[in-house]
This record gives sequence, structure tokens and C-alpha cells, in this order.
Amino acid sequence: MLTPGDLILLVSPKGKQYLRKFDPEAKLHTQDGVIDLSQVTQAGYGGVIASHMGSLYRVLRPSTYQLIKGVKRSTQIMYPKEIGYLLLKLGIGPGVRVVEAGSGSGGLTTALAYQVGDTGRVYTFERRPEFYELSGKNLEAAGLSHRVARYNHDILQGFAPEGMVPGDPASDPSGADALFLDVRTPWDHLEQVAAVVCPGAPVGFLLPTTNQISDLLRGLETAPFEDVEVLEILVRRYKPVADRLRPEDRMVAHTGFLIFARHAGTPFTGSIPVLDRVRRTQENPDDNAPDTPDATATPHTVDTAEEPHATDTSNMAASDPPPSGADA
Amino acid sequence: MLTPGDLILLVSPKGKQYLRKFDPEAKLHTQDGVIDLSQVTQAGYGGVIASHMGSLYRVLRPSTYQLIKGVKRSTQIMYPKEIGYLLLKLGIGPGVRVVEAGSGSGGLTTALAYQVGDTGRVYTFERRPEFYELSGKNLEAAGLSHRVARYNHDILQGFAPEGMVPGDPASDPSGADALFLDVRTPWDHLEQVAAVVCPGAPVGFLLPTTNQISDLLRGLETAPFEDVEVLEILVRRYKPVADRLRPEDRMVAHTGFLIFARHAGTPFTGSIPVLDRVRRTQENPDDNAPDTPDATATPHTVDTAEEPHATDTSNMAASDPPPSGADA
Amino acid sequence: MLTPGDLILLVSPKGKQYLRKFDPEAKLHTQDGVIDLSQVTQAGYGGVIASHMGSLYRVLRPSTYQLIKGVKRSTQIMYPKEIGYLLLKLGIGPGVRVVEAGSGSGGLTTALAYQVGDTGRVYTFERRPEFYELSGKNLEAAGLSHRVARYNHDILQGFAPEGMVPGDPASDPSGADALFLDVRTPWDHLEQVAAVVCPGAPVGFLLPTTNQISDLLRGLETAPFEDVEVLEILVRRYKPVADRLRPEDRMVAHTGFLIFARHAGTPFTGSIPVLDRVRRTQENPDDNAPDTPDATATPHTVDTAEEPHATDTSNMAASDPPPSGADA
Amino acid sequence: MLTPGDLILLVSPKGKQYLRKFDPEAKLHTQDGVIDLSQVTQAGYGGVIASHMGSLYRVLRPSTYQLIKGVKRSTQIMYPKEIGYLLLKLGIGPGVRVVEAGSGSGGLTTALAYQVGDTGRVYTFERRPEFYELSGKNLEAAGLSHRVARYNHDILQGFAPEGMVPGDPASDPSGADALFLDVRTPWDHLEQVAAVVCPGAPVGFLLPTTNQISDLLRGLETAPFEDVEVLEILVRRYKPVADRLRPEDRMVAHTGFLIFARHAGTPFTGSIPVLDRVRRTQENPDDNAPDTPDATATPHTVDTAEEPHATDTSNMAASDPPPSGADA
Repeated sequence: MLTPGDLILLVSPKGKQYLRKFDPEAKLHTQDGVIDLSQVTQAGYGGVIASHMGSLYRVLRPSTYQLIKGVKRSTQIMYPKEIGYLLLKLGIGPGVRVVEAGSGSGGLTTALAYQVGDTGRVYTFERRPEFYELSGKNLEAAGLSHRVARYNHDILQGFAPEGMVPGDPASDPSGADALFLDVRTPWDHLEQVAAVVCPGAPVGFLLPTTNQISDLLRGLETAPFEDVEVLEILVRRYKPVADRLRPEDRMVAHTGFLIFARHAGTPFTGSIPVLDRVRRTQENPDDNAPDTPDATATPHTVDTAEEPHATDTSNMAASDPPPSGADA
Repeated sequence: MLTPGDLILLVSPKGKQYLRKFDPEAKLHTQDGVIDLSQVTQAGYGGVIASHMGSLYRVLRPSTYQLIKGVKRSTQIMYPKEIGYLLLKLGIGPGVRVVEAGSGSGGLTTALAYQVGDTGRVYTFERRPEFYELSGKNLEAAGLSHRVARYNHDILQGFAPEGMVPGDPASDPSGADALFLDVRTPWDHLEQVAAVVCPGAPVGFLLPTTNQISDLLRGLETAPFEDVEVLEILVRRYKPVADRLRPEDRMVAHTGFLIFARHAGTPFTGSIPVLDRVRRTQENPDDNAPDTPDATATPHTVDTAEEPHATDTSNMAASDPPPSGADA
Repeated sequence: MLTPGDLILLVSPKGKQYLRKFDPEAKLHTQDGVIDLSQVTQAGYGGVIASHMGSLYRVLRPSTYQLIKGVKRSTQIMYPKEIGYLLLKLGIGPGVRVVEAGSGSGGLTTALAYQVGDTGRVYTFERRPEFYELSGKNLEAAGLSHRVARYNHDILQGFAPEGMVPGDPASDPSGADALFLDVRTPWDHLEQVAAVVCPGAPVGFLLPTTNQISDLLRGLETAPFEDVEVLEILVRRYKPVADRLRPEDRMVAHTGFLIFARHAGTPFTGSIPVLDRVRRTQENPDDNAPDTPDATATPHTVDTAEEPHATDTSNMAASDPPPSGADA
Repeated sequence: MLTPGDLILLVSPKGKQYLRKFDPEAKLHTQDGVIDLSQVTQAGYGGVIASHMGSLYRVLRPSTYQLIKGVKRSTQIMYPKEIGYLLLKLGIGPGVRVVEAGSGSGGLTTALAYQVGDTGRVYTFERRPEFYELSGKNLEAAGLSHRVARYNHDILQGFAPEGMVPGDPASDPSGADALFLDVRTPWDHLEQVAAVVCPGAPVGFLLPTTNQISDLLRGLETAPFEDVEVLEILVRRYKPVADRLRPEDRMVAHTGFLIFARHAGTPFTGSIPVLDRVRRTQENPDDNAPDTPDATATPHTVDTAEEPHATDTSNMAASDPPPSGADA
């Protein structure tokens, strides 16, 4: 049973979509006439309601995909194909604390806020006032603003904006589990990025040009990050006709490149002598200590392996067959 | 601070990965020597611990990507590129109830269970005993089995297996929010699928061959499903070298095609006369009623539009710029 | 020095292209004014000429790509990406005799006629009178009609049309070196195809849907063809901006699938006993004999190998390094 | 009827290929035994011949594709997917004169020499002696060396090598119709390239990395070239199984990027005043004059249009339907 405040997506006979928080007292004015939303209670998700002119509208529970696509935007938003993949690479799920900049129109913010649930937190930073406003409205429309700390703040000055209460997880992003940057010059922010996430945290970047990738790779080489990956994701659609199945004639060929890395945590190398290692460990006695990469450590190496290493879970599933390990 | 039971991923100097639930009393036997896991408390996520031979291992919080890749498998598992996308299309997030068949090695089950959180539920069905066992072990290893109802059951006999308590959301998948099938002949199960999900629910399928897509499309045409989409997802990786940036020489060219549709809910058409519509609405007085598509209704139409319709959220973000609507 | 009759491509300041046979007496009427083509003699390829209104036009020698693109069309023409590849797979070059059906707008015909030179021959068949006309005009415009035998003929009735002089290589396609079919149901013509090409000849097909590929593969399995390949070719363009290099936003995602095979020649198998083989060879005493596949022979096998076998040219280049064999 | 000297491709039961010039006196030593090549006369193209151990070999006329693949190589050779496309972009056909550097293993040289026929000419330059040797042997093996002028020469010193007879089209590449560079730093050679080709000639480049593309684009901006295009070509193969049609699991994801441009000829602009234009034309009174780009001319503009301009052939095919213009 739908209750007031639940998100509903109303779909017209022509496919036009209206995202609303359910209010049984409200009326929706459409090109097909006025719709009395009190009908929604009875119709429920999947049901139909009628305008005063007799047009039938479907009532749906919006998917995350539809929430993202429903974001009002004045710039290009991130596409579901990239968002879905980064959710897995960054481990975004219930309870996770994730930092994002810039907010843009709030498409990715919406997806992150949906996925972290009421026990997680999204911290989003946006320098330009108009996008700070727009992303806020979009989050409100999606009913997700209570999960998000939003800042109209330039991250060149770090991730400790005015108004933040240090140590308060509702507003302070310190020690975040993950981070994603969709900004023009991410290499300018790597030190700040390394400082705000917890050791070992996954971070991601979106960049449209190959020149920017090269610049970011150079930046990552001298910052405390490991396991750098560069990739792009292509979605190819087919005409869904059983007897004449074929790809669509045209497709989106490029949105952006995704770059992933992992905060290098405390220095890691298998080649340093034991005594050094012991000393090094003693220098980081606290796993909550701020990020202090040892400048004398062997630089991290970039893992270019196409195939990830198999994971051993053997003592938990003792007699299992061996993994066969193909990647994508 | 890590507490016993937390999931940890231990990474060797050569990149070998060990997924474990943290037990400070345990020892890990590796090719690099024995590791006393009591060190993990102090090291924390992102820290390093040493084997008795002096090899250093990184301690990480596993990402969803790593959990999926870490699944022990005797068949091909689904790839993160497909899983990430279907999470968004099916709206998988905290609190969602989702049905899956077959369980296979449990890769997708693991991702679904991670995303739905403690307030959601995954119902997974597997016909073959050996995979029923294997997927269970993998879920246990990932610490996610408490979120999953698992059935060693052939869905040709429906989604009401022996042992299910009707009406108990912990075991009964009825009215699920979403469903995904990774089986050889999904067209044989469409009636059962339509019966188990809630009206309007999104459903998805994975199929390796074009012949199967055609067969499924034919099935969907005569079953109560709408908004059919067929697509595939390609990930192209680049060698992360700043001064010699180029794509990898080879890539995974095919894993499977994704097909999405939406349960058609109660019949929907803009062309039926008003009186008929009124009667129709009266026939479905309860939004929790089982799925009873009207056999006399106009058949649903397949939406082949490449670009999704813009969503109107206007009364919530009144002065926003117009959406520019590109898809993927 | 350009001589009358040479093909010239005139390009306007806005990029509009005019393909002409050079006639120094002619005038070209354009939106930029009238151009006296006598200027072309002095300008030459690469030079510029002026309209009476002072607009400058470039004079170019058209590339094959431009000839194909310049074809006037009322249907989709084949794309250079497919044409370039099939030229190599079918071995189209100077002196080659190649059969084509249907002619369509004449785009592929133009490319074939250009490549075979004055010593080769193209035989093209078209059932529909309007395309027979159109392709003829396009060939004439490209100055290539003298290399082409054109027939307004349905190949369901074979490749021996009315008006053909049997045994005359100018009109009779028998024993052609190669063949390409761009027709809706190529599986209906395989027996005729096998009869018109020489033993061992490469043949190719263009088909837009996966259903047609399956139908053709079934046809090829029972016809005398070997080494079947199915592939598609994608061209991805980049914005040519040095400091902001990135792929174009959109691309052509599908034109058609290419299928290649080779006429099986006389039966081939390594497993038949010696006596049988000897007898078999005696049954085909003449290498110019018409195609008579032995119905009792082991069916041909489909070679699905992704990587072609390395070719040994060792006795001609004795000390060469070994081939390293990667395909595409 | 095959005559001595004709190229033949012998294919073993296991698919191993032997490229030879037909010599009826010769014997081929294979793993399947010795083959008396006198049998080839009777077998002909498409026929079979037997080794002394009874193994049957197919006799084929090699396609251009097979000639390229048959090149013995010590470096990566160019792939047919790129070669086919550049043949069309550069207009390579019978009678064409084309310059190439470096020769490498001779794969592209072989294809060019095949396509230009006996009336055309290939001029190929190779700095490293070992590749100069290797490409020569490969051309000889393919029976095409008589169409090629080969130089062991570094093009940093231009395209007028020692031993060239100025003005002799058999050895002097001056005024070539087209040019292709497969070298590491093509931007170092643009002035020489502009000097060796005829005005308006198409030129092409192959480069593996995005950094090199950017460098080349910068070079082209200040050299007399127009109509710059950057693209890459992907071939996706399918398993040719009628009832289980699907793409191959893996594919070649990257070989190189293709860059095309056109020699700008004499300066071209629609905006210069008439008097200036007249003077300019007088400065280039001879269409055979060497390339002397006017340094004061408006810089050429890069055409980034995805869709080529339609070509008007209207006065030759007067009543034709309008072109519909899609590219690739």
C-alpha cells in the first residue's frame, strides 16, 4: 500500500514521465488533462489512474535508472552505464560514506544517496552556486536529500567547508569509505583527496579527454595511490524485434573515461628489509591515523594487469572448484 | 576500528587476494609464510601486516567488485559490467526485495545481497544441488547469507518452493520489487515471473546468443510485459601509462546480452472508451491484488525508442533548465 | 596535366562536392556563381579555380572513398568500412573478375570497378529496374561503366541473363574469381553462387539482422562452401583537437554483418582412405571443369578459429624470423 | 589453367598455409610428407593434391588478405581492417603512385603493390637494414617486387634517396598520388611529406598512442594539410553457429589509430578579396609546380564534421533521388 511521501513515477500514454512524492490531496496538470492523485492510493504501483479527460496514466515505483534520468539538468549528467560500474568499484552500498565533487546537476548524487540508504552518507561539493541549487532541488524531488551533506564550496580549499562540524559524521567527510571526482582538473586535488578518505579507500574519476587522462596518471604517480585502472564503458542497444534482431543504427560512442585507483594506505612493498618494515609499522600505530605516506618509500607500482588476481576464500568454502577468472 | 566478523581482503605482494571474516585468533597460511591475524586490529583497513617470513600484506575493505570477483566458481559468473547496470535498471537498493534464478556460483546473489542491506531480501533459486551448495558457501564467505532466502528448486514449478512460509517476507518472494533470470530458456518461465513480482516491477534477463534473444522477445510479446530493451555492455581498458596512453591490445568482446522489461501491471491503453476504463479500474479494487492482465486488452507495445522520455519534476524544481536527454 | 575526361572533384568553400568528368568547354552552375571549367587545365589537381562571383573552389582527384560517398542513392549504400575489408577478403585487384548482386545504387559496383582496372571485369545483377537505371548513371558519372557488365535480371534464375554471350569474358561471369551478395535471402542463391565462381573462390555477403545470419549459416552448411566467417566492422571517430582529444559523441553502431566463405572446390578431407582419394582425383581430371562437388564427401567443416593459421613462405625467404600471427 | 610463376596457396588438412610461386618441377616438404607440385597443373585453383603419405592439400589463389597475413614478420604488421580502409581513403587502385614509410615487414607494401597493378608504383622507405631485407623477401615471395621501388633510407633526410633517378617515375616518388606513414614521429616529416606528394593528395598515418595523435595534430595544424580525420577500426567476430549465434568471447581491442589528411594544395579560402585571389593564382601558373604553400594564407581549418558533404553529380544523372548521406 502506497503511503503519502512515497516516490511515484506517473507515465502518460505517450511515455512522458512525472516524478512526484505521493500526496493524495494533490492534482497533476498534464497535457492530457488534470489528474486527481487520490486515485493513486487505490491503483498502487503498477496500476492506472485517469485524467479528467479520460487519459490513462501508469503509476510506477521509479528505478534508480529512472531517478537518474529524471534529474533536471543544465549540464551533461553521468550516464547509468558509468554509474552502475563505479558503484561496484567503489563498493557503494548500505551504510557507506562517500564523497563526491562536483555535484553538477545531482545525477550521480541521487544514485549514491539511493544506494547508501539511511545508514550511509553522501558528502557532495559544488563550487558554482547555480548547480549547488539545482542539485539540491533534484535530490529533494527524489526524496533523498536527508542522506546528503551538500556544500557550495571549492575543493581547491579542501574538503573542510564552512559549516562543517568536525567529527560529526553527518557533516564531516573525514575518513570516507570512497570518493568520486567529476571535475576538470582532478590532478589539482589529489593531496586533498588522499587526506579525506580512509586508508586503502577506492577513488574514481570521470574525464572526457585523453589529455586529461595522461595528466591525471602523472598526478597519481606522485601521490599515494595504487592499482590505477583506466577504462570506458560502451552500451550497444538492439532493436527488440524477434524476427529482425539487429543493433540500433547509432549509439552513444563517448561520454567519458573512468579512472579508478586506491588510496595506498600505509607504505607497502615486499622488498624493504625486515627491520625497516618493523620500524615503518611502528610509525603508524593507529589505523585511524591520518594519511602520512612515507616519502622515502619505494614508489607504488601501477598494476596494468587486465585480469584481476583470483581471490582465495578457501578456508571458508573448502572443497570448491578452482576459480576460472575472466574479467570485465 | 575493525571488529571481529568484519570482512577483510588481504593482498599479497604479488597481488593474490584472500577474503576473510576478521578473526583476531586466526592464522593465515600463505606461500609467503604464516600470518598472525591479530595484527589486523592495529593495522586497520589500508594498513599492512607481516608474515613470519617478513612478507607484507595489505589489509583492505573489499569493494562489491572484489566480492563478486572473489566468488569461487565452477561456471562463468556474471561480470561487474552487467551487474552494475542491472542494479540501476532494476532499482536494487536498501530495502528492496528481489528474486533471482539460477543462483549459479552466487556472484550476482552476492552483489544483490550487498546492495539490499539488512532491510531488503534476496530470494534465489537453483535447480542443481552442486550450485546450490556452492552459492551458499560463497554467500557465507562474503558474510551476506543472512539476507538471502536460498532454494534448491526448479522454477519450472514456480516460485513457491517447499519450505517457503506463504506470506512471510523472509521466505516468500511474492510481490517482489524486481527479478533477474540467468537461465537457459527464460521464455518458459514468463508466466511464473509475472505472477511472483508486484505489478509494474522491472525484470531482467541474461542470454548469451542472439537466437535466445529472439525466442525471449517472442515470449515477452505474448506475456504481460512492456518496455522491452535489449542491449550489451562493453568495457574497454587502457594501459595506464601517461606518456603512452593506448587501449589494451585485447578485450572481452562478449559475455552476454541483457534484456529488460517491465511487468505491465493492470492493462494500460489510452484508446479504450471512458466507460470501459471505469469498469476496468473497478475490477482491480486492490493494489495488492495478484496480477490479472485483462486478456481482452490491447496488446502492449514495445518501446524501441533509443532516448528515454524526459521526466517532469517541474513542480518540485520550478525554474530549472530543460533536460537535454541523452541516453545510455 | 589534366586531360579532358579525367575525373575531377570540385569542392566549394563550404565543402559541397561536385564530381565531374573534366570538360574544358563546360561551365558549372553553383550557389556561388558560374565556374568556367577551362581554369581546371591550369589549376590541376590540388589547385583552385574561381566562380564569376569570386568564390574559390578546390580541384581534387577523387579518392575511392569519395567516389563511393558521391554515389547518388535512394537506398542505403554500403559503407567504406565494409567495402575496404571485403576488397582484401575477396582479393579484388587489377585483372580480377567479380560478380555482384544486387547493384543497388552502385556504391560497391563503383569501388569494385575502380579496383579491378581495365584488365578486370565486374558483373553486376539487379532485379529492380529503377536501381538498374540508377547504378548505371552512377557508374557513368564515375567514368567506370566500361569495366562493368550490368544486368537487369533476377538471380533466382541464375547468373546467365538474357543478352549474355556464353564464353565471352566481357559478358559471361562464369568462373569468376570472387562474388559478393547484398540481397535479402542469400541462402536461396547458394547453388547458383557455387556454379558461377571458380573452384576455391572467396564469396561474401552483407546482412543486417542476426536472424538472416543464422539462415545463411544453415544454407552454407549444406552447400559446397568452407571457412565460414561472420564479423562486423565498427569505425570510431575522434574529434581532431590536439589538446582535447576524445572520441566523437555518437557513432554509426550498425550497418550490417559481413559473412565470408570459400567455395569448397573439389572435396577435401584428410581422413578418406588413399584409394578413395586417388579415385576422387581422377574424377576431376580437368581444373577448368565446372563445379561438381561430390555428394558423398564428408561435409565441410566450419573453421571457427579466431586466429588464422600462419603462412609458410620459408623456401622463399629462408632466414626470416617466425611469424607472430595476430589477427583482425 | 595455372602457369608457372602464378601464386598459389597450399592449405594442409590442419589449415597450415604455404605461399609459393608455382613451379611444376618443385617439391614441397611438409609435416604430412613430400608433395610433388607437378600435380598443381591438373588440380588448378580450388583443387586438391596429395603428399606421398596421402595427405590432401587444397590449392588456392591467395586473396590480398591471405597475402598480408602470409607476410613473415618480426614486428607487428598492419591489419587488414586498417589496410582495407586506407586503400579507399587514399584512393589506391590501378595506376596509382604511392609512397610508404617505413616498410616494416612489408605487409602494407604487399597490399599496395597488389592494388596498384603493373601500371602503378609503390615507393617504400625503410631505415633499418634488417627490415629493408625482410620486406624485400616478402615482396619477392608474393611475386610483387617488380612494382616496388625500395629504399634503405631514413626519411628524415627526405624522399630523394641515393640511387634515385630524378624524373624517372620508376624510382622518383615526386608528385606521388598518395602517401602513408607508419613511423614513430610522423610530425618530424610533415614538410618532406608535403614536398613529395602532388597538390591535394591524400595522406595517412598509423599511430598506437593518443599522445602521438595529439603531437601529430599539432604538427598538421602548422603544415599545409586540410581535412584532418582521426579514427580507429574495430572488427568483431562471431562464432558461425546457426543455432547459437554469438560474438567471440575475446577480440583485438587495439592495433592503432588512423589519421588522414589532405595536402592543402594551393591556398584555399573563400574570404580573400578578388584581387588577392587573382594574384595568388598567377603565382602558381603551373599545375605541376612544386608545393609552395603561401605562408601568409589563412590557416587551413580542420573539418570535424562526422558526415561528409553530399556530392553533386547532378548534370550526369539528372533525375536521381537525393543522396541520404550517412558515413563510416
